[in-house]
Amino acid sequence: MKKSDTEQIRAANRVDIINTLRVFGPLARVDIGQRTRLSPATVTAITSDLVAEGVIREVQKPVSATGRGRPRVLIGLNPDHASALGIKLSINEIRLMLGDLQGNIVAETVVTADTQSLDQASLNDLLVDQASRFLEDYPDHARRLVSLGVAIQGIVDAHRGYSVWSPALSIKNVNMTAALEAAFECPVELANDTNCIAHAIHKHPEYLQKPDFAVIMIGYGVGGSLILNGDLYSGHNGAAAEFGHTKYTPTGPTCACGKAGCIEAYVADYALYRDARALIDLPETDRRHPSEDEMRHLTQLARDGSTPARELFDRAGRVLGFGIANVLALISPERVVVTGPGVRAYDLLEDSIQAGIQEALIPELVGRTEIQSYPWSEDMTGKGVIALALGHFR
Amino acid sequence: MKKSDTEQIRAANRVDIINTLRVFGPLARVDIGQRTRLSPATVTAITSDLVAEGVIREVQKPVSATGRGRPRVLIGLNPDHASALGIKLSINEIRLMLGDLQGNIVAETVVTADTQSLDQASLNDLLVDQASRFLEDYPDHARRLVSLGVAIQGIVDAHRGYSVWSPALSIKNVNMTAALEAAFECPVELANDTNCIAHAIHKHPEYLQKPDFAVIMIGYGVGGSLILNGDLYSGHNGAAAEFGHTKYTPTGPTCACGKAGCIEAYVADYALYRDARALIDLPETDRRHPSEDEMRHLTQLARDGSTPARELFDRAGRVLGFGIANVLALISPERVVVTGPGVRAYDLLEDSIQAGIQEALIPELVGRTEIQSYPWSEDMTGKGVIALALGHFR
Repeated sequence: MKKSDTEQIRAANRVDIINTLRVFGPLARVDIGQRTRLSPATVTAITSDLVAEGVIREVQKPVSATGRGRPRVLIGLNPDHASALGIKLSINEIRLMLGDLQGNIVAETVVTADTQSLDQASLNDLLVDQASRFLEDYPDHARRLVSLGVAIQGIVDAHRGYSVWSPALSIKNVNMTAALEAAFECPVELANDTNCIAHAIHKHPEYLQKPDFAVIMIGYGVGGSLILNGDLYSGHNGAAAEFGHTKYTPTGPTCACGKAGCIEAYVADYALYRDARALIDLPETDRRHPSEDEMRHLTQLARDGSTPARELFDRAGRVLGFGIANVLALISPERVVVTGPGVRAYDLLEDSIQAGIQEALIPELVGRTEIQSYPWSEDMTGKGVIALALGHFR
Repeated sequence: MKKSDTEQIRAANRVDIINTLRVFGPLARVDIGQRTRLSPATVTAITSDLVAEGVIREVQKPVSATGRGRPRVLIGLNPDHASALGIKLSINEIRLMLGDLQGNIVAETVVTADTQSLDQASLNDLLVDQASRFLEDYPDHARRLVSLGVAIQGIVDAHRGYSVWSPALSIKNVNMTAALEAAFECPVELANDTNCIAHAIHKHPEYLQKPDFAVIMIGYGVGGSLILNGDLYSGHNGAAAEFGHTKYTPTGPTCACGKAGCIEAYVADYALYRDARALIDLPETDRRHPSEDEMRHLTQLARDGSTPARELFDRAGRVLGFGIANVLALISPERVVVTGPGVRAYDLLEDSIQAGIQEALIPELVGRTEIQSYPWSEDMTGKGVIALALGHFR
């Protein structure tokens, strides 16, 4: 409550109402009050401002099944009031997405580009150029653009807007936000992909009121994210939470980061496929990125009873369990949510994750924490980066 | 800024001023405003209330060296306005401490008791009985008692006031606060010893404005604590941060917790002494608690060039480095502060801690985080638990 004064409180309450409507809306005024714990007078005053500005609008409640009772006036965000642009940079691919004020993706396009050959200047040009072209096709969105969000794999300094290291780029310590900020004259958020995914999950009604949970992303790499005290936690260096590079053993298989024994070096798609090829007759693949089909094939081999494939997933689950045990000991979260393309094999991993945790920790340290999987969809990163950008709409 | 209203803001600003004076006081009104970022009008209004209530008082600034300039009126807490009782329960020992409003320990006593034989009822009786007797000797403090704090080693559920597991007790899941709350009719805080130490460090002027740091306690055990976004973080289960039971290897030496390969099983006094006795001719000791003298002797052997002793400390440092690497990857803190009785050997550990971190993590993940030792003193736990209890003074 630093520097509190009436205006700041009102601004904070306004944001609170907008965010509540984004997640739970449309809502009756009385329900807005209940969810935000604001007084009826405050809700009425702020919502009437928001209606006048066109940020929200009254919508009719669908007639109830029984058809009885007076229909209540519900209030919802006006999705067309503001827009945000999300950019997801991956290896040789830029995905551009337009989000409405509700946080829904209303348009997207994918552009290929040789991301590995970029330097800071050509990266700046590429980002600004692609964003401008994409927005040209959507002049209405361009006019009401409030913010941009950029998602990238790897280690990010979220506070300074730098990609510290990313598999998508061959250059390190590269600014991802300044050129876009200058070109579009609005704030630009940068986050790594897993923090975007965590942000998307956090905006889900079931998770919004969970103050402490960890998200673990498994798939092309292994990432982590922490929601602590109800907020995304990015740490002093802005790089939290690099779960994939916590350790299973001080020695062990080589990780994409160059070190040995990282959780990722056992659990990521590339690690599973690499180790499987030493034991099973599998076609060659991109050593860093086995395809989804190749990973599904390997997963199916394990389900069909292939002992070496089965043992690989058992080991990956156990390693994941040990890694999660460290998170439980340090953070004591309410939940650990496992998601990402790698949950395609969650049925093969689940028992050994639990076994790994039990082996690593006494029950008192496991506590009441639940481990659960969350269904993966390709657009979670995009939804998350747009949600992050929309945080600037006030 | 939930449920914000003028009264709540005023209460929060009042706490802010009290806490600022506790750490930085005495201060001129203008400096209070600067540190709290409150307006002069707010500072004047709240400090005049506090003066009227006797919580703070005006003190004269010592005449400056040059003797020039008008002496400014400084404001400081009135240490005699309120008191808190701290209780530290260790194996076979209860330490009782009285703290004044400034947070200074003004009286203390140590009572021996067979803590291992206690059940819930006799523990309740013992705590209430010892606290009552101690307070009888200090009737002035008893009259102005605002809160109690209890510190205990082991896993604590800070939210519910339970000792989940402690080496000091043979019973698990035991409530530590309810009987004291009923007897003294005031709030009682429970924290594990490392969280108390972190709280004491956090109240140090140099650390108060560091939003994200980790504290690692080495000595009779290995503990951890996280200050995140400027607050002590205890997690959903209230047990964060059990750094000592994060893993160096999935197998490895047995830890006091019963599992294998925990950081504590390499770094704690009992682990170092146990492993040293296999290699060096050392007298037998309490297997869980080598004495300070015995540990100093072992440390001196290493300093004097004993290869096996030296190698043990090297290994302990490297293990600690790997454990810290996991904290860096997950939390990305500004600092990691190593303290506790074990810092007696920090000169022997420091290089291998750094080597362990470098071996475990790529430089991008080490980031700008500093690792440093903090001088250990016996009363840090006591100061911390009293600071925690004084949080209830508003």
